[in-house]
Amino acid sequence: MLQRISLCPFLREGEKQVKALTNRETVIGSKIRRVDAVPKVDGKAKFVADIYFDRMIYCYLVLAKKSHGILKAIYTDQALKVPGVIGVYTHMDVPGENQLGEVVKDMPCLVPIGEKIRYYGDVVAVVAAETYEIAKEAAEKVRLEIVDLPPVLTIEESIKDKVKVHEPTNISIHKKIRKGNVENGFKRCDEIFEGEFYAHYQEQAYLEPQGVIVTPDIDYGFTVYGTMQCPYYVQNSVARVLAIPLNRVRVIQTETGGGFGGKEDVPSFVASYAAVAAYNTGRPAKLIYDREVDIQTTSKRHPIKSHYKIGVRKDGKLEAMEIAAYMDMGAYATLSPIVMFRTLVHAAGSYEIPDVKVDVYGVYTNKVPPGAFRGFGSPQVLFAVESMMDEISKKLGIDPIELRLKNTLREGSKTATDHLLLESVGAVKTLENLREISRWEQLKKEVETFNNTNENRKRGIGVSHIFYGVSLGAAGQHLDASGSHVQINADGTVDVRIGGTEMGQGAKTVIAMIAAEELGQDVQKINVHQPDTAFVPDSGPTVASRTTVYSGNATRLAASELRKRLINVFCELTGSSTENVDWGNGKFYDTVSNKEMSFDELVEEAFRKNVKLNETGWYETPRLEWDAERGIGEAYVTYSFASQIVVVEVNLNTGQAKVIKAYTSHDVGKALNPEGIIGQVQGGFIQGMGYALYEDLKLKNGQIITDNFNTYIIPTIHEIPEELVIDIVEDPFSRGPYGAKGIGEPSLMPTPAAIANAISRAIGKRVTRIPATPEYILKLIKED
Amino acid sequence: MLQRISLCPFLREGEKQVKALTNRETVIGSKIRRVDAVPKVDGKAKFVADIYFDRMIYCYLVLAKKSHGILKAIYTDQALKVPGVIGVYTHMDVPGENQLGEVVKDMPCLVPIGEKIRYYGDVVAVVAAETYEIAKEAAEKVRLEIVDLPPVLTIEESIKDKVKVHEPTNISIHKKIRKGNVENGFKRCDEIFEGEFYAHYQEQAYLEPQGVIVTPDIDYGFTVYGTMQCPYYVQNSVARVLAIPLNRVRVIQTETGGGFGGKEDVPSFVASYAAVAAYNTGRPAKLIYDREVDIQTTSKRHPIKSHYKIGVRKDGKLEAMEIAAYMDMGAYATLSPIVMFRTLVHAAGSYEIPDVKVDVYGVYTNKVPPGAFRGFGSPQVLFAVESMMDEISKKLGIDPIELRLKNTLREGSKTATDHLLLESVGAVKTLENLREISRWEQLKKEVETFNNTNENRKRGIGVSHIFYGVSLGAAGQHLDASGSHVQINADGTVDVRIGGTEMGQGAKTVIAMIAAEELGQDVQKINVHQPDTAFVPDSGPTVASRTTVYSGNATRLAASELRKRLINVFCELTGSSTENVDWGNGKFYDTVSNKEMSFDELVEEAFRKNVKLNETGWYETPRLEWDAERGIGEAYVTYSFASQIVVVEVNLNTGQAKVIKAYTSHDVGKALNPEGIIGQVQGGFIQGMGYALYEDLKLKNGQIITDNFNTYIIPTIHEIPEELVIDIVEDPFSRGPYGAKGIGEPSLMPTPAAIANAISRAIGKRVTRIPATPEYILKLIKED
Repeated sequence: MLQRISLCPFLREGEKQVKALTNRETVIGSKIRRVDAVPKVDGKAKFVADIYFDRMIYCYLVLAKKSHGILKAIYTDQALKVPGVIGVYTHMDVPGENQLGEVVKDMPCLVPIGEKIRYYGDVVAVVAAETYEIAKEAAEKVRLEIVDLPPVLTIEESIKDKVKVHEPTNISIHKKIRKGNVENGFKRCDEIFEGEFYAHYQEQAYLEPQGVIVTPDIDYGFTVYGTMQCPYYVQNSVARVLAIPLNRVRVIQTETGGGFGGKEDVPSFVASYAAVAAYNTGRPAKLIYDREVDIQTTSKRHPIKSHYKIGVRKDGKLEAMEIAAYMDMGAYATLSPIVMFRTLVHAAGSYEIPDVKVDVYGVYTNKVPPGAFRGFGSPQVLFAVESMMDEISKKLGIDPIELRLKNTLREGSKTATDHLLLESVGAVKTLENLREISRWEQLKKEVETFNNTNENRKRGIGVSHIFYGVSLGAAGQHLDASGSHVQINADGTVDVRIGGTEMGQGAKTVIAMIAAEELGQDVQKINVHQPDTAFVPDSGPTVASRTTVYSGNATRLAASELRKRLINVFCELTGSSTENVDWGNGKFYDTVSNKEMSFDELVEEAFRKNVKLNETGWYETPRLEWDAERGIGEAYVTYSFASQIVVVEVNLNTGQAKVIKAYTSHDVGKALNPEGIIGQVQGGFIQGMGYALYEDLKLKNGQIITDNFNTYIIPTIHEIPEELVIDIVEDPFSRGPYGAKGIGEPSLMPTPAAIANAISRAIGKRVTRIPATPEYILKLIKED
Repeated sequence: MLQRISLCPFLREGEKQVKALTNRETVIGSKIRRVDAVPKVDGKAKFVADIYFDRMIYCYLVLAKKSHGILKAIYTDQALKVPGVIGVYTHMDVPGENQLGEVVKDMPCLVPIGEKIRYYGDVVAVVAAETYEIAKEAAEKVRLEIVDLPPVLTIEESIKDKVKVHEPTNISIHKKIRKGNVENGFKRCDEIFEGEFYAHYQEQAYLEPQGVIVTPDIDYGFTVYGTMQCPYYVQNSVARVLAIPLNRVRVIQTETGGGFGGKEDVPSFVASYAAVAAYNTGRPAKLIYDREVDIQTTSKRHPIKSHYKIGVRKDGKLEAMEIAAYMDMGAYATLSPIVMFRTLVHAAGSYEIPDVKVDVYGVYTNKVPPGAFRGFGSPQVLFAVESMMDEISKKLGIDPIELRLKNTLREGSKTATDHLLLESVGAVKTLENLREISRWEQLKKEVETFNNTNENRKRGIGVSHIFYGVSLGAAGQHLDASGSHVQINADGTVDVRIGGTEMGQGAKTVIAMIAAEELGQDVQKINVHQPDTAFVPDSGPTVASRTTVYSGNATRLAASELRKRLINVFCELTGSSTENVDWGNGKFYDTVSNKEMSFDELVEEAFRKNVKLNETGWYETPRLEWDAERGIGEAYVTYSFASQIVVVEVNLNTGQAKVIKAYTSHDVGKALNPEGIIGQVQGGFIQGMGYALYEDLKLKNGQIITDNFNTYIIPTIHEIPEELVIDIVEDPFSRGPYGAKGIGEPSLMPTPAAIANAISRAIGKRVTRIPATPEYILKLIKED
C-alpha cells in the first residue's frame, strides 16, 4: 500500500520562512482540495468525446498499414458508396501546406500519391461520415495500392544506412558534449567501467485517447477543441495546413485525461486531419482515436541504446565519462531533435565530472515515431548511468549512497555541460534524507536477513540519484515564456486563464493557489478556466515540468499587479498607508489601525471607481548561454534533484520482480501544493515502475502487436509497493514562484534505475535492458 | 437620392494636422472597407438564429396578455401533454432572484402567482420543447387565471394616481435642474413663448429580433450567445437569476442585426428566461422572439409630453427657460431613471441661458416599458425646444440660423447645467457650414418660388440645432470605463477584443483602424472578434455614442504599449534610436538610416526573443462634478453638436409630407472613419425621419396593435430625400482618440425637429406632435 510520511523538516522550515516574511496566513504550502476534483469524480467533466456539435461529422483515418513502400493509388469508390459517408479527403484536399512536424518538416499530413509510406501508421486519407461507425466502415473500404520496400526495423539496421528511410541518410541528427578531454581523464583513473544498455519503447498510456473537434466558428475562422498539452502547436499546425492566418484559428483545450508527453505534438496531427474534413465540409468534424489507432500511430518513449565508459579513482571519484547513445526516431523526426538535447545533457547524470564526452545520434527506422514522454529522453540514459554507478559501487565496495554523495552536484559544482550551479542544488539533501527515511542501515540488514531465510525469493536494494533540467532549456529558449490573464468580476470572483494546460497534473490547483495567495481571495472563488489560445500569446508547450514556474510566475505577476490596485483603493477608503496593508483569507486589512474590508467589498468599490480589474502576466526565461557546437553552457535555467531507494523481490523460479518498498526524496525548490507533489511522485513512481518491469511493446514487421491494454501491460493497484515514503526537500530557486521548480517529470526519473539496480543486486546479474520482464530476468539468471 | 459631398474643409485641415504631427501615412481618417462587410453581404455571418447546438431546446414565452390584473393561477397540464414538450418553467423554477431590471428592481423575471400583471407583455412562464413549433403550440395551451384591474393607459391618467401601477405612487421619479432663477429671468424678457409638445413611442425596428442561446459550458458554468448591446448586463442578470457567481457566466455577443438601444437591457431579460430553461434542463436553450412578441413586449422610445416656457429679449437672446416633461415609463422603470437624466440635461437645447428650470417626471402606466433608443430621452425634448426656437424665429422675424448662432454654446459658454465648456465646441461651425453647403439664401428663394407656383403642394424649410452629451455622463460614471485586449500572433496577425459591441454601427472597423494606426500593421490583418465578457472586465454598456471614445481609447492604449515593445526590438536589431523610428503600412523604419523591417518580420523576431505580445487597455472616464439635487455640474465629458436644414413638401390635400432635401453638419471632434460617419448620419437621418413622419405605434387597451412592419410603417428607399448633404466638422476633444467624440446618436437628433419645423413653415401651423402623420397634418391644416 502507498503510504505517505508527513512532509520532512525542510518543508516545515520553508513554510516558517514564508510566514515570517509576510506575517500572514498563506495559501502556498497548505493543504487544498484539487480545484478540478469534483467534476472529475462526479462525471460532469466534459472530455472531447463527450462534446457534440450540431451537424457534427465523424472522421476515421485511413492508415497505410505497411511499414515501407511507395503509395501508387488510393481507391475511394467503395468507401464513397457507403450510405452516410460525406467524403474521403486525401492530400489533394489539403488547402495549405501538406506538412506536419514541429521541428523538421519531414512528415506529410496526408501521404501523397507517388510518395513514400514510412510506417504502418502513416495517414493516407480522412473519411468523414454521419456517424463514427459509418466512417470506420468506409475507411476499411478505401483500398491503397502500395509497392513494398524493405523496412528498416532496428537501430542497428538503420545505422548500416543501406535502406534509407529518408534521404540522404538515416543517421540524420547528432548532438554532442565535449567537456575537457576524456582521453586525459581516463589516464587519471584507477578503474575503467564499461557497459551497454538498452531501454525499450514506453507507451504513455493516458486514460483518454487522442481526440479533437474542429469547428467553423462565429469569428469566421476555426476553433479546435481537444485533449492536448500544447494548444499553440495545434494552432500553428492547423493554420499551416488550412493556409489561414493565426487570428482565424483558436484552440481550446478540453478536459484532458492524461498526456505524459503523448499529447505534446500528436494533437497537432490529429487536429490537422480533422481540420481538413471541417474545411472541406464546413461542418464541425470530430476525430477520436480508437485505442488501437492511438497505440499504433502515436508517439512513445524512444528506444535508446547506449554505451558507457566511466573512469573512476579508487575512492570512487568520477574522473571521465564517455557516452554514445543511439535513439530510434522511427519514421519521422517529430520532436526527436529536442528530445535528444535532453538525452545529451542528462546522460552523465547528476555528477561533477572533469572530462565528459557524449554523442547522441538520432536514427530513422520504419516504425512509429517516438516523441515526448515524461522525462523526454532522459530516463533511458539515467537508467544507464545509474546502473553504471551501481556497478561501480559494487565493484569498489563503496556504499551506493556514499558513492553518489562523493560525486553529486553541489552549489559551486559544474555539470557535464560545464554549467556552474549557484543555487537551489538540493541533491545532497535528498541523499541524506533518504538515509534517514529509509532507516538505511537497518533496511540493508532486513534485506540480508530476508535473503538468508528465503531460497527462491531474493530481495535487492536499488539506489538511484538523478537531476532534471527544468523547462525547455537552451535548445528551446525561443519558446520559453508563458502568459496569464487574470480578471476580477464585480462579485469578487476571479477568472484565471493561462497558456499552460491541465492534463491531470494539478496545474489548475497550483495556479488557483498562486492567484489566491497574491490576491488574498479564497481559492474557491478563483476559476482557472480551460486554456484558450485567444487569451494569452503563444506560451510554449506544457511540457518539461515548466508549468508551475512559467504559468505560475505569469499568474503571480498579473495577480500582484491587481492586488496593488486594490490596496490603493483600500487606502483611499480607509486612509491607510500602503505599507501597512496586508491581505489574506478573503480580506484586506491595515495591520496598524486594524481596519479591514472583505475582498468582495473592496472589489465592489474598485468597480465603482472604474479601476481596471484585469491584467496580463508574462514570464520569460532568463537568457541562457549555450555553445551548441561543444555542448557547453547553461543547459537549463535550474535543475530538480531526486534520490530513491527501492527494495525489489525477485522470484528466481518465475523471474517475476515486485517492488516491496520505496523511499524517494525530491528537491522541488518549494512545495507550493504539497498534496499535488505527493500525487505527482506517486504517479511518477508507478509509471517508472511500469517502464522498468511490465510495459513491453512488441512489434512485428514494424506493426505494433500489443496495441491495447490486454497485451500492453501497465501496473495496476496490485503492483503498488507496500510502502512508498515520499520526502520533499525545499532548496529554493530564486526565479521560481516562491522558490518552486518542477516536479512533473523528476517524479519518474529515478525509478527505472533504482528498480534495475535492485534486481541486479537481488539476482547478482546486471540488468542492462528495460523493461526487465520475467522472461528477461529468467534469461539473466540462467546465463552464466 | 442620397448624395454625399466630399468632406468639408475642416476635415481636410484636421487630416493635415495629424500627418504633420506624425510624418507618416495614417489609417485614421482614410477610406476603409468595413471589416465586417463581406460576411454580412455573402451570408456567412452567423446571427444567433443561425446557430444550433447539439441537444438544443427551443423556448417560447407565455405572456400575460392582460394590461392590469392579479395572477391567480397557471395551468400547465394541457401544455405538458403536447408531444415534444420538455417543461413549462414558472417563477417556482427560478433558482436565484426572480428579479429583473438594471436600475430599479420593480420587475419580476417570471410573474409569481398572487402578484400583479402590469402589462400585456409580462412573462409568466417559459415553455421548452424539442422544436420551436411545439414550444409555441404548447405556450398557447398554458392557461392563466387573471383577475382584471382597471388599466392606466395615459400619462394624464397616471398623474391622477388613482389606480396605482406600483405602490406607493405612479409618479415615482423626478429629476430637476435649477440654474439661476427663472422668475427673475422672465422679468428681463421682452417676449415670453409657451408651447406644449408630445412625442410618441418609436420602435427600434432592428432587422434582427431579440434572441439568445444559453448553454452549459466546458468550464462548468453557462455561456450566453445572443444579439445584444451590453454583454455585462446580461452576465449580471443571468448570474443573479441563476444564483451563480459571475465567473461561471460568460456572455458572447453574436453578430447583431441592429440595436438602437433596443438591445441595451432587453437581452438581459431574454437571456434570463432562456437561462431558467437551460438551468432546469441542463441543455442549450434557444429563445428567439417573433417580431410580434418583440414589438409587444420590448423597449421603445418613451412618449414624452412637455411644456415649454421661454423668455427672450427682442434681439432673440434667450434669457430664461422653464420646462416640465412627463415621461411614460410603462409598467416598469427599466432604464427610465437614466434616460430621464439625458432628457433633463438636453431639454434646454444647445444654448447658453442664464436662468433654467427643468422638471422631468417618470410615470408608470400599464403599457410596454420604454427604455433606450438612439438619443435616449433627448430627441423628444430637442424636438420641443427646436420647435420653440422656430416659433421664436418666426415671431421675432430673425433668420433661424441667426437666432441659433446668437444663442448657441461656444468655448467659454455654460450649459443649462452650468457646465463650463473649455474645448471641442463645434456648434458655431456646424451652423456656419450649413449656410454654405445649403446655399442658404438661394435655398430660401427656391422654396419661395416653388410655393408661389404651386397651389396644393407647399414646401417649408426647417432648421434645427442640437447638442449631445457623449457617454454615460454624471449619472452613469460608475460604469464609464472600457477595456480592450490586443494580442499579436507569431504570423503578425492581430486579435482585438473590446468590451463594446458591434451592432451595425461600425465599431469593429473603427477599432481595427485604431489598432492598425497604433501598430502600423495592415487593417486587413487585424481581427476584431465578437465581444466576450471573459476577455475584458465590465466595460459598461454599448450605448450613449461612447464606443469610439471608450473602447477606442482602451485599444489605443493597449496597442501603443505593444508598439513600444516592437520598437525596442527594432532598435535592438537595427541599432536605431527609438526617437527615429516611425511605423505604418505594415512596416517599421528608421527615418534617419532608412533601415526598415516589415511588421511580420519584426513580430517573428520579437517572438523569438520572448517579448510579451499581448496587452490589455483600459480607459476610465474623467471624474465629473455633479450636484444631483440642483442638476448642476459637468453632465457629460464632452458634447457633440449638429445642425440641420430640411426642405419638406406637404400635399395640402392628403396631408402627406415628404423630405425633399436635407443638409446636415456634425461636429464629431475627429472623423476616424469618415465613411462610417457618413453611414451613421444617413441612417440616423432616416430613422429620425421615420420618427417625425411615419412610425405610429397604436395601442388598444394597452395592447400594441401595430406589432409588425405591415402596420408599423418605417421609411423605405422610396422615402429617402433627393439630396442629403453631409458635412463633418472636426473640433477635437482632447481626451478622445485622435480627438474623436460620438456620432451614433447625434446623427438622428436634429432630424425630427427640422422636419416638424419645415412642415410648420409649409402649412403655417405649428406641429406639436410627432409623428406628423398625414391624418395629423390634415387635421392641423383644417384647424382654425
